[in-house]
Amino acid sequence: MPAYKEMSREELLQEKAALEQQFEEVKGKGLKLDMSRGKPSTAQLDLAMGMMDVLNSHTDLRCEAGIDCRSYGCLDGIDEAKQLLADMTEVSKDNLIVYGNSSLNVMYDTVSRSMTHGVMGSTPWCKLKDNVKFLCPVPGYDRHFAITEHFGIEMINIPMTETGPDMDLVEQYVNNDPLVKGIWCVPKYSNPQGLTYSDETVRRFARLNPAAEDFRIYWDNAYGIHHLYDDKQDHLIEILMECKKEGHPDMVFKFCSTSKVSFPGSGVAAIGASEANLEYIRKQMAIQTIGHDKLNQLRHVRFFKDIHGMVLHMKKHAEILRPKFETVLDGLERELGDKGIGSWIRPRGGYFISFDALPGCAKAIVAKAKEAGLVMTPAGATFPYGKDPKDSNIRIAPSYPTPEELAVATDIFILSVKLVSIDKILEEM
Amino acid sequence: MPAYKEMSREELLQEKAALEQQFEEVKGKGLKLDMSRGKPSTAQLDLAMGMMDVLNSHTDLRCEAGIDCRSYGCLDGIDEAKQLLADMTEVSKDNLIVYGNSSLNVMYDTVSRSMTHGVMGSTPWCKLKDNVKFLCPVPGYDRHFAITEHFGIEMINIPMTETGPDMDLVEQYVNNDPLVKGIWCVPKYSNPQGLTYSDETVRRFARLNPAAEDFRIYWDNAYGIHHLYDDKQDHLIEILMECKKEGHPDMVFKFCSTSKVSFPGSGVAAIGASEANLEYIRKQMAIQTIGHDKLNQLRHVRFFKDIHGMVLHMKKHAEILRPKFETVLDGLERELGDKGIGSWIRPRGGYFISFDALPGCAKAIVAKAKEAGLVMTPAGATFPYGKDPKDSNIRIAPSYPTPEELAVATDIFILSVKLVSIDKILEEM
Repeated sequence: MPAYKEMSREELLQEKAALEQQFEEVKGKGLKLDMSRGKPSTAQLDLAMGMMDVLNSHTDLRCEAGIDCRSYGCLDGIDEAKQLLADMTEVSKDNLIVYGNSSLNVMYDTVSRSMTHGVMGSTPWCKLKDNVKFLCPVPGYDRHFAITEHFGIEMINIPMTETGPDMDLVEQYVNNDPLVKGIWCVPKYSNPQGLTYSDETVRRFARLNPAAEDFRIYWDNAYGIHHLYDDKQDHLIEILMECKKEGHPDMVFKFCSTSKVSFPGSGVAAIGASEANLEYIRKQMAIQTIGHDKLNQLRHVRFFKDIHGMVLHMKKHAEILRPKFETVLDGLERELGDKGIGSWIRPRGGYFISFDALPGCAKAIVAKAKEAGLVMTPAGATFPYGKDPKDSNIRIAPSYPTPEELAVATDIFILSVKLVSIDKILEEM
Repeated sequence: MPAYKEMSREELLQEKAALEQQFEEVKGKGLKLDMSRGKPSTAQLDLAMGMMDVLNSHTDLRCEAGIDCRSYGCLDGIDEAKQLLADMTEVSKDNLIVYGNSSLNVMYDTVSRSMTHGVMGSTPWCKLKDNVKFLCPVPGYDRHFAITEHFGIEMINIPMTETGPDMDLVEQYVNNDPLVKGIWCVPKYSNPQGLTYSDETVRRFARLNPAAEDFRIYWDNAYGIHHLYDDKQDHLIEILMECKKEGHPDMVFKFCSTSKVSFPGSGVAAIGASEANLEYIRKQMAIQTIGHDKLNQLRHVRFFKDIHGMVLHMKKHAEILRPKFETVLDGLERELGDKGIGSWIRPRGGYFISFDALPGCAKAIVAKAKEAGLVMTPAGATFPYGKDPKDSNIRIAPSYPTPEELAVATDIFILSVKLVSIDKILEEM
């Protein structure tokens, strides 16, 4: 079949009529499907059920250092949990603080602390005359943008390329504008494109010469060990060491969590950074809490044992996720590969597929899918302020539905793309 | 034996010599004792060990609403945990948000949010020309003062009376100074005095007419169900309802946690407030996290079942704590009752005994005790900025040591009080 744009009005109308009939059929089923969030499926959660058994009333609840994990104390985490999360994020355990259950909360607190207390002694951002700015590679993660928006931080779109953010632009902003205090990055299997920053991109990050002393790279390595394939894995250079090598040891905050390793609601999060950054953070943390949940840290360590155990565990996740990604990707390829009405990238890990529709179609496609009972991430969500200037990008999250549901959801999505695109093309004829 | 002040120099020197000999003896034992923090003992932690068994890999991990507690979501807590903590803090569950493991963290976040975003839409405190002020009933809780100091909030000492803070002063400040935005309260079995605010005090709080629309009472009901006696219990009027009755429904934030009910490191915390306050808080919280640890909420609910279960559990804590408090109090009474060198109050609950030494003696007593291996809360800690203007107040925390250790610790403390007081009296003769 030719690309839609090469078809005549009559051919398009004929195609549309056929598609509409299919759409009405599936709509009539009254389905309730969700591809909106990067949420592990029940089958994935079941993988970690053993974690519920490693601690019980007969277990020694002291960590290796002999501390009773039930009680207060141990502000920045028990040693063995530090080791596990340090290995997960590829830093030394001296460069890590273990937090509570949510890396989003760690990121929020990091920005909030900068607002009220600055970064390593810099002027608190709330005391600056002008609004602080953050660079936001787009498409990106809506919850990152929500944090910066919440604090009144101006967000600047930085287009993503196949090798990561447009580094020419990043350098231009960071090295010249002292109000640019941060950049949000999901450097591996990025949200939503599934891209991994190239070696050159990471090195250019490390070589930045920020105009602001309190500029930091907010490196959310959410999918660092979340591969889909054993034999095809992306590799990301470790940025903390790169920054150290380039003489900027304090320039990066790394975030990670086990939310998509153990349980999304009851994981363990951490921040990785230079000793100087961590010392500053610990001082604030000592005011904020007496310590996070050490029993949950212990639970994770006793279950996974070490990073090898965690890596083996991630292979089980991949077994479940891979066919789901392939269902969507194969569907897109088969049905849209030759239509010229959308493009996407085949990710090797992470939780998302990013779909770029014809300009001006994303909102309508999401609305169309909803008609048939399929909830997608709202169009625009992958951009700061929810505004996709081209109204083109849609994030697909294939993890949560069952394989059966996913097949139907993919069909609905594809039908919606086709129908909205035909209307658009007809409109512009 | 007469009061020390009525003794002659010779009698005092003789007494001192005898005490010094006793002190050297106990010092020679090389003990390591700790009465510095309100930390439950190992025996108390063991009481909740059943909580480690209520969830396992065969348990249904859905809450009553059918939500899988392992996954994301449920921002403000599962319903049954809300109910339990609402009952604990005596509010409706519609007036409660469940948080993570630390009420200190909730208080910190509450102040931090006020700094950056104001209170229910008021001007963010960091944007005000002048520094915000908090009233601090003294003696009080050092970690409260640490939060306000961290945010550069000016702290004003309010003397405690037997019925609570000096309400004449409170009214004068709150009703006239728009920069007074809060007051820290531990209204029941207060930290450190173990006093409970009288009905009249609570009613006067509810009848405040703050000059600042964003003034809030920070009501840290940390010891609401932490009685020492079955037959002698303090009663505290519920302040949220009182404020509502007086037409100030939004004037109070209530904080509570199960840190000293289940496990200090792995409890569940909550905030209680009016619907309007909670709506505002939820908006911020939705940016900060996807949700707190619901499995731990479920664990608490399955173990305690309901507030009655929790109350029964607290009786077991009391069985362990009561003899400890009595060891200290009986020792003080026996050895210091007639010496005129210190005063204290016999609390009916909570975690502390507050000791007022002769003016100018507190620091020296704490230092003296340390010589013999007994760590006390630093003198001054019960006052803002760590400054006790009289250098008189010492907080005694009898919970952590074993009964045997506690008997020795009490002896060391009493010896230290006597020795330092004799020196002081001799000096002033």
